[in-house]
Amino acid sequence: MSTRIDNDKIFKALANATRRDLLDCLKDQPQTTGQLCEAFPVLDRCTVMQHLKVLEDSDLIIIRREGRERWNHLNPMPIKHIHDRWIGAYAAHAVDLIGRMQMDMGD
Amino acid sequence: MSTRIDNDKIFKALANATRRDLLDCLKDQPQTTGQLCEAFPVLDRCTVMQHLKVLEDSDLIIIRREGRERWNHLNPMPIKHIHDRWIGAYAAHAVDLIGRMQMDMGD
Repeated sequence: MSTRIDNDKIFKALANATRRDLLDCLKDQPQTTGQLCEAFPVLDRCTVMQHLKVLEDSDLIIIRREGRERWNHLNPMPIKHIHDRWIGAYAAHAVDLIGRMQMDMGD
Repeated sequence: MSTRIDNDKIFKALANATRRDLLDCLKDQPQTTGQLCEAFPVLDRCTVMQHLKVLEDSDLIIIRREGRERWNHLNPMPIKHIHDRWIGAYAAHAVDLIGRMQMDMGD
């Protein structure tokens, strides 16, 4: 179960726009650290590694090593727990409907 | 659409355990500010009001005034946007299944 300290870590990790952008890059498929560095040419490798460390420590990414490569995988479970904490199963359908209505209105 | 600054506000608001506890209180029904103060007797009214202001500024709660009462409603939409940003429609089913398997294993 998540503790308050774990949750603090997750939200502090997500409170940084670069780290959110890194997670966006991992949404569709895992990436090596080299690929992520290429995707963020304005950041030096050391900065990218520091952000990935924060994401790993808060369990938002999972690292798998293959030979010399470090593959970064998005871990969707903390995100799912955020959703389930404040949007119950009953409310999820209504919230989904409101979301689609807002999209139709261009919000 | 959410901007980076809006997102910073949301995650900074959620990075505080008391504010997360306040949102928990609002999950099932709206509460007046007086009711929330009663639910958090260790906090003085001013502190509760400050936390509610941060939640309101980040759009996580919506305030409705009725006479002298201030009703605080959880706004689920920012939470839904967090979910949808990193868990696509296709992945949602798999993530839900993993979540239920972890629950069965007592994780």
